[in-house]
Amino acid sequence: MKILVLNCGSSSIKYQLIEMLSSAELRAKGLVERIGEQEAVFTHKPVGKSTYEITTAIPNHEVGIQMVLDALTHPAHGVMSSLSEIGAVGHRVAHGGEYFKKSTLLGEKEREEIARLCQLAPLHNPPALLGIDVMKKLLPHIPQVGVFDTSFHQTMPEEAFLYAIPKEYYIQNQIRRYGFHGTSHKFVAPKAAELLGKNVNDLKIIVCHLGNGASLCAVKNGISIDTSMGFTPVEGLVMGTRSGDLDTGALLYIAEKEQLSYAQMNTLVNKKSGLYGLTGGSTDMRDIIKGRAEGDEWKTNAFNCFAYRVKKYIGAYAAAMNGVDIIVMTGGIGENAFLMREAILNELSYLGLDFDPEANKKYVGENGIISKTNSKTTAMVIATNEELVIAMDTYSLAKTEDTI
Amino acid sequence: MKILVLNCGSSSIKYQLIEMLSSAELRAKGLVERIGEQEAVFTHKPVGKSTYEITTAIPNHEVGIQMVLDALTHPAHGVMSSLSEIGAVGHRVAHGGEYFKKSTLLGEKEREEIARLCQLAPLHNPPALLGIDVMKKLLPHIPQVGVFDTSFHQTMPEEAFLYAIPKEYYIQNQIRRYGFHGTSHKFVAPKAAELLGKNVNDLKIIVCHLGNGASLCAVKNGISIDTSMGFTPVEGLVMGTRSGDLDTGALLYIAEKEQLSYAQMNTLVNKKSGLYGLTGGSTDMRDIIKGRAEGDEWKTNAFNCFAYRVKKYIGAYAAAMNGVDIIVMTGGIGENAFLMREAILNELSYLGLDFDPEANKKYVGENGIISKTNSKTTAMVIATNEELVIAMDTYSLAKTEDTI
Repeated sequence: MKILVLNCGSSSIKYQLIEMLSSAELRAKGLVERIGEQEAVFTHKPVGKSTYEITTAIPNHEVGIQMVLDALTHPAHGVMSSLSEIGAVGHRVAHGGEYFKKSTLLGEKEREEIARLCQLAPLHNPPALLGIDVMKKLLPHIPQVGVFDTSFHQTMPEEAFLYAIPKEYYIQNQIRRYGFHGTSHKFVAPKAAELLGKNVNDLKIIVCHLGNGASLCAVKNGISIDTSMGFTPVEGLVMGTRSGDLDTGALLYIAEKEQLSYAQMNTLVNKKSGLYGLTGGSTDMRDIIKGRAEGDEWKTNAFNCFAYRVKKYIGAYAAAMNGVDIIVMTGGIGENAFLMREAILNELSYLGLDFDPEANKKYVGENGIISKTNSKTTAMVIATNEELVIAMDTYSLAKTEDTI
Repeated sequence: MKILVLNCGSSSIKYQLIEMLSSAELRAKGLVERIGEQEAVFTHKPVGKSTYEITTAIPNHEVGIQMVLDALTHPAHGVMSSLSEIGAVGHRVAHGGEYFKKSTLLGEKEREEIARLCQLAPLHNPPALLGIDVMKKLLPHIPQVGVFDTSFHQTMPEEAFLYAIPKEYYIQNQIRRYGFHGTSHKFVAPKAAELLGKNVNDLKIIVCHLGNGASLCAVKNGISIDTSMGFTPVEGLVMGTRSGDLDTGALLYIAEKEQLSYAQMNTLVNKKSGLYGLTGGSTDMRDIIKGRAEGDEWKTNAFNCFAYRVKKYIGAYAAAMNGVDIIVMTGGIGENAFLMREAILNELSYLGLDFDPEANKKYVGENGIISKTNSKTTAMVIATNEELVIAMDTYSLAKTEDTI
């Protein structure tokens, strides 16, 4: 069965076509960018064929998705002869609230629930809903599945998900920690256990998903018990342009001084902060590492703040689980920036972690163990694959649907 | 030498008269409340004499301080025959910014600096400044010393004190983590070392100051390397009415939904949150512990959130220091609420902490060790005494002043 994985943003569509055989095999992937603009760009990469790219006006998501479907079945750069080969569509949805505790087949009721959740995730859920609606229109007889960034974290206990604000905000408005990056954490934790020949249900694992967006997750016996992103993705770690944890008093002090509107405050913490804010313009960890090597003061500060925040969260989650067996590094920075991994992991011997600086330098963009052989706690690098999780969840639900 | 310790709030004056002999001996303490109201209350407690209390109009701090000085030298309830016995006045000042790295004799330059810092601490520094000005007027020839809540934390490195926001906010506006409760952390950490017959300069200590306001401090080799309060005292732990850590995205979501002003947002996180917000009105840990025993859902949540937040910070600071030798509980809750201490410390065996539940129940309002004899990490209860720190710092500076 071929699964189309769709990730719709406000002006973009990312997709992969994955065929589920004995293993999952990528057939094509691509990206539609700048939807709504005159010079939108569509890039289609069929496996084994050359890349197809055009720049043209793409007025809306429906036109964009139609272009994706045309490309997938195109005689020259397509990878299948007919759309009927698509067995199911898996949609990445940012916010599943408390309703979606796992990936779910999307009927009318589920569609309504995702629409209702747009109020909690006004930037992220509307484009996903658009993708779902367009797909139902274009491929009405194919199962659609929602895979939610939040659902893996629905196992968190109250003390981890409640904020210490008036309880009515939770009871009436569902304001609480939800966490995101769930598909990544859900993929990486059992993968780490598997690579070590252990059972994820017996382990305390801390997954560090470090990319432009970044979050940690404490996975105890296979389930998420805490995560660093919160009600929104701005909480937690230092990120590309997001501040992560910030004294609300400091934000209000700035806001009052500069008479910022709500939108401007949101822009400040979401778009102008993080590595970008500390360096005055850089979000690229490679550039920051280079600047640090050259003695740039603020790139050094950005590097150190990023590392220190991750280290503190590792410590916090070790306390939450009363120890840790495996610490996993994933995401663009976690998989590649070995100097950052070293800064984070090098002085955690109190956790029983005997970090291996040599192994650490070896595994760049490649899975491997970066602690010494006899280390009580194991540190690992594992490449994440969120699209694969979406494809597997979608396949598994669509298959069940078939047999009913 | 007798030291008058003064702690001026916006509508209150707390004071102690302490005589520095071979040990520091309390002569009197008291409180002026509701300054500016028709029914202000002045309570004076001279040691060895009966308490004197009156309710009367106290229009301003000058009148209040004059009443304190009159009471201290009163024939019936006084404790000295003349004000000339006061050798120095120690003022508790909330915010010392980056300027005051330690307690300091207050000349004209220092007074100006405290005035300038009112912009960083608009609620807390102005009454302290008022107290300093009134004292200089009433006792012009006596040394005045400023003891700052922030100064003990001035040893934090950049990665601990910088927020990941545009660097200009730090460079131009000094927006950074300062931390508070410094006098308490500074007192408790060496006291813990002393009680164990060890040198604070060789130790990794985590001090948990848990009261209506609450903060943790990581003290490595005698100096503060991180603390949970930030630019303002709202960051960090769950407190009586303060939220502590909160996703700024969640705050902005609420603010936009309810169209809150900056002042209303500040009130929400400072006055309506924390234990008060979670329970719907209770800030008293005894009441919360009682409610929890009776199965009250939200008092249970408040208790668990409070404990879990402290536990995570202990973990974070253990990571920051690569281990911990001593964990100290202090402040009203830390010194008395043994069930809270148990909830925080009971499952931290990964740190080498062998918690002793029996000893823990014994030390209520009394110093003692609450981990087992062979525990690698020691947990202790130590009563804090911020006034004593102010008196000692003031004495030490005034003495030096004398000899010059």
